[in-house]
Amino acid sequence: MSGSIEFFFNPKVVAVVGASRRPGKVGYELLRNLKEMYKGTLYAVNPEAKEVLGVPTYPSILDIPEEVDVAVIVVPAEKVVEAAEEAGRKGVKGLIVISGGFKEIGPEGAERERKLVEVVRKYGMRLIGPNCVGVYVPKSGINTLFLSKERQGYPPHGFIAFASQSGAFGSAVLDWAAMRGIGISKFISYGNKADVSEVDVLLYLKDDEDTKVITLYVEGVENGPEFFRALKEVTKHKPVVVLKSGRTEAGARAASSHTGSLAGSDAVYNAVFKQSGVIRAYGMEELFDLAMGLAMQPPATGDRVAVLTVGGGSGVMATDALADLGLKVPKLSDQSIAKLRKVLLPFASPYNPVDVTGSAVDEHLVEAIEILITSGEVDAVMWLPYYMVPGLTPELNKKFVERVKKVFKETGRVIPIVGVATGGSYTAMYAKEAETMGIPMYVSPERAAKVIKALVDYGRWLRGTGYLEHHIERFYRWFVG
Amino acid sequence: MSGSIEFFFNPKVVAVVGASRRPGKVGYELLRNLKEMYKGTLYAVNPEAKEVLGVPTYPSILDIPEEVDVAVIVVPAEKVVEAAEEAGRKGVKGLIVISGGFKEIGPEGAERERKLVEVVRKYGMRLIGPNCVGVYVPKSGINTLFLSKERQGYPPHGFIAFASQSGAFGSAVLDWAAMRGIGISKFISYGNKADVSEVDVLLYLKDDEDTKVITLYVEGVENGPEFFRALKEVTKHKPVVVLKSGRTEAGARAASSHTGSLAGSDAVYNAVFKQSGVIRAYGMEELFDLAMGLAMQPPATGDRVAVLTVGGGSGVMATDALADLGLKVPKLSDQSIAKLRKVLLPFASPYNPVDVTGSAVDEHLVEAIEILITSGEVDAVMWLPYYMVPGLTPELNKKFVERVKKVFKETGRVIPIVGVATGGSYTAMYAKEAETMGIPMYVSPERAAKVIKALVDYGRWLRGTGYLEHHIERFYRWFVG
Repeated sequence: MSGSIEFFFNPKVVAVVGASRRPGKVGYELLRNLKEMYKGTLYAVNPEAKEVLGVPTYPSILDIPEEVDVAVIVVPAEKVVEAAEEAGRKGVKGLIVISGGFKEIGPEGAERERKLVEVVRKYGMRLIGPNCVGVYVPKSGINTLFLSKERQGYPPHGFIAFASQSGAFGSAVLDWAAMRGIGISKFISYGNKADVSEVDVLLYLKDDEDTKVITLYVEGVENGPEFFRALKEVTKHKPVVVLKSGRTEAGARAASSHTGSLAGSDAVYNAVFKQSGVIRAYGMEELFDLAMGLAMQPPATGDRVAVLTVGGGSGVMATDALADLGLKVPKLSDQSIAKLRKVLLPFASPYNPVDVTGSAVDEHLVEAIEILITSGEVDAVMWLPYYMVPGLTPELNKKFVERVKKVFKETGRVIPIVGVATGGSYTAMYAKEAETMGIPMYVSPERAAKVIKALVDYGRWLRGTGYLEHHIERFYRWFVG
Repeated sequence: MSGSIEFFFNPKVVAVVGASRRPGKVGYELLRNLKEMYKGTLYAVNPEAKEVLGVPTYPSILDIPEEVDVAVIVVPAEKVVEAAEEAGRKGVKGLIVISGGFKEIGPEGAERERKLVEVVRKYGMRLIGPNCVGVYVPKSGINTLFLSKERQGYPPHGFIAFASQSGAFGSAVLDWAAMRGIGISKFISYGNKADVSEVDVLLYLKDDEDTKVITLYVEGVENGPEFFRALKEVTKHKPVVVLKSGRTEAGARAASSHTGSLAGSDAVYNAVFKQSGVIRAYGMEELFDLAMGLAMQPPATGDRVAVLTVGGGSGVMATDALADLGLKVPKLSDQSIAKLRKVLLPFASPYNPVDVTGSAVDEHLVEAIEILITSGEVDAVMWLPYYMVPGLTPELNKKFVERVKKVFKETGRVIPIVGVATGGSYTAMYAKEAETMGIPMYVSPERAAKVIKALVDYGRWLRGTGYLEHHIERFYRWFVG
C-alpha cells in the first residue's frame, strides 16, 4: 500500500464508533482519554445516545455533519465490518480497529478480517489493527488507548517513536516512560497488521520531523524482504532500535501462541539487522537507553573510548563494561598524560580511566574533557561525575557542556559523550539537568557502555552508507548551533 | 585476627578525633551526620574547642570522662599514628581511620600504615581503614560517612549487608538504595584493609541476625585461600553476592591504578566463586536485584520455570530471558493444561507461558498459581501481573499471596515466586505492596530471570552442602509463619 499515513497521527476530526456511557467499558475509557487530550474535533457514534461524556453523538457515522479523518472502532467483532462499510461510505481516510475477534482467534476470525480488509480496499481507506490499542501522539493529543489515567500514565512529547506489535506491552512501556519522563513523538500498536504494518510505519517515521530515533517491538514479521529494504533505507537517515522477542526456541513457541507470529530463526533476524544497520536491544530498559543515547549523541567514528571519572571503583567497572563489549579503552599518549598531570591533582590518575578523584573541583573535569577530545586518541568519552562530592558545584554541568561545545567548534572534532550518575535524588536532579543540555546519563556504567557500543556500531554502518558526515553535521548544528 | 567486630556496628560511646567547626570539612560533616543519626553517646576531640556542633569536645581522647568503644579518626595522615596511640592508651576497642595518605600514595604512606598497624596490635585494638568511609548502620545510627544529607541519601534499616572496597562507590550505592527504598542492615567500607578485611566482615555477617544476604564489591583480594574458606563457610548459612571488578585486562589495569589491587585472573575468581557457592553479579543494579530476590525467596530445587502472565508479549520476553540463562520453560502436562483450561478464559493460553490475557480477573491468576505449584512440574514461577488492566482489583496481591501460602501449607511444596511489573506509578505502587508481602518485583522479565537463575544456582549449591532443606524450612517459617 502506498500513500502517507500522516492523518492517523494528526487528524482534524475523529469519530469513536461504539462510544459507551458505562465507565470501565473500552468505548467509555477510550472516549474519555480522547476528550481530555485530543486537540481536534471529536464525535461519538452510538445509536442510543445524543451525547456521551459531553461529546456530540450520532446514531451512525454517516450522520456526522462534517468530514471525518479517522474512525476509531470499538464495537464487537461481528459489527466491525458493517461499521467499516459505513465509514467508507462517509469518506473516512483511516480506521483504527481496537476490537479483537479476528485472525488471532482462528479461521472464523480470519474470514472476518479478510472481509474487513476488502471493505478498506474498496473505499481506499487505510487500517490500523484490528486487535490493537492504536495510536498515541502527545502533540496532537490523539490517543486511542483505553486504560484510564488513574492506572496508566501518558508520556510527554519527545523525540522517540515507538511501534509495538503487542498492545499490552506497548501500554506498559508508555506508562513506564511517563514515570521516567521519557518523551515520545509517536506511539503505534498495529495488532494483527491487516493493512498498516511495521514497513508503513518505518517509512512514515523516516520523514517525521518530530522523530529522531525509531524503536520497535517485534515478535514476528510476515514480509521479510520488504521489511529488510525498509530498514536499510530508514537507518541511513535515523537510528532504528529493535527489541525482537521469540529469540530462543522456547520463546518462539510462546510467540506463536501469543500472536500466531512465526518468530523465525533468530540467526536470520540477526543477519537482517546487521546488514541493515539496525541496533538490537535485549529488553525494554535497554531499548530506551539506546534510543535516548542515539537521539542525543552523534555516531562514533571509531571504537576507542576514554573513561573520565570522579570515582575510581566506577572507573574500573566502566572499563570492564566497555571491554566486555569489545570496545577499546586505550592507554593515552605520553603527551596527553603530561597535559592531564598539569591540570589535575597530584594524586589523580592521568591514565585511562582518567580519575580526577573525589577531591576534584569542576575545573578538573572541564580541563580533562578538553584534553581528551583534542588528543584525537579516543572516539568517545564516558564521563562519571559524582555530583555529590564536596568540591563539585551546581555549575558543573553548565561549565562542562560549554567547554565541550567550545572544543567541538575550535577543533572540528566531534565525538559522543555519554554520562553515568550513580546515586540518589540529588544526583538524579543533576543527571536530569545534564540531559536537558544534551548529554544522556545512565545509572550505571554497564548501561552507558551499551549506549557507546550502539553509537560505535551505528557510526560504522553510516560510514558504509556514506551518511556518516551528514549525521555528525546534523548533530553539530543541533548541539553547538 | 580474631574476636568479634560487633562493637564497630553497635558502639555505646563514639569519639570523633579531628572534629572541625568548619562546614564542608570532613571533620564537620561526619560529626553532623553522627549527631543527627547516632543513638549512643558522642564525643568530639579538638584541641582548640570546648564544643563542636553542640557535642562535648576535649583536647585529647584521653580527657573524655568515660570509656570509648570506637574512635573515628579524621586528622591529617601525619597525625594519625599519634591519635591511634592515644586511643590505645584510652582503651578504645576499635579505630575507624577515614584519613587517606597511606599505602595508596606509595612507600612513605606504606611505612605510615605499617606503624599504624603496629600501634593497633600493641593495644589489642581493631582497625577499619585507613583511607575509607567506614560504617553505616541504620539501626544503631553509627554513620562515619562524610557527605552531607543534602547531597547524599541514607537508606533505612533492611536485611541486606553491603561491604565495599571502594568508598566512593559505596557511598553512591547507599545514596541510590535510599532513593529506591532498599533497606540495609550494615554497610562497611574498609579501604586499605590494614586490619579488618572482607574475611572478618564475612564471618561477622554470617552470624548477624539482621542480615539475610551479604553483598560485596571487590576489586582485589590479598589473602585468597582464607577468603575462599570464609566464603565456603558463610554461603551455607546465607547467600553471598559478589560484584568483582577488574574482570577484563583493561579493567584489571584500571583497578591496579585505583587501589593498587592485583585484580588477579578472572578465571581464578570465577572458579573460586563457583566452588564456594557465591552468586556473581555484573553491575550495581544486578547486585541488589539478586540480593532482594535471595533475601525474600527460597532457593529453587530445580531449573524448570513457569511463566504466568497477563500480557502475551511480556510472556514471550520472559521465556527468552529464562532460556538465555539455560533455564527450562517446560510444556505442562495434559492434566495441568486441562485444569488451567477449566479455570481460565476460553481464549487464555494454558500452556507455558500461561497467559491469562488482559481480560483476566484476580481469580484467574490466583487459581493458576495453585495449579502450577501443586503440579510438581515446575521449580519456580515468574508471574507478570499487569496491575493496570481493568479486571484486576487492588486486592490482587493479597489474594495471590494468601493462596500461595495456603498451597505451600497444604502441599508441603515450597517454590520461589518472582514478579515482574512493567509500568508507571500505579504499577509501581502495587509492586511495592507485593514486596511488603514477600514477593520481589522487577521492572522487566530480563532482570527477574537473573534472580530466578540465582535462586536455582544457590539451591544447587545448598543441596551439595546438605543445607538446602534448612533454608527452605527457614523461608517457610518466615513466609507462612
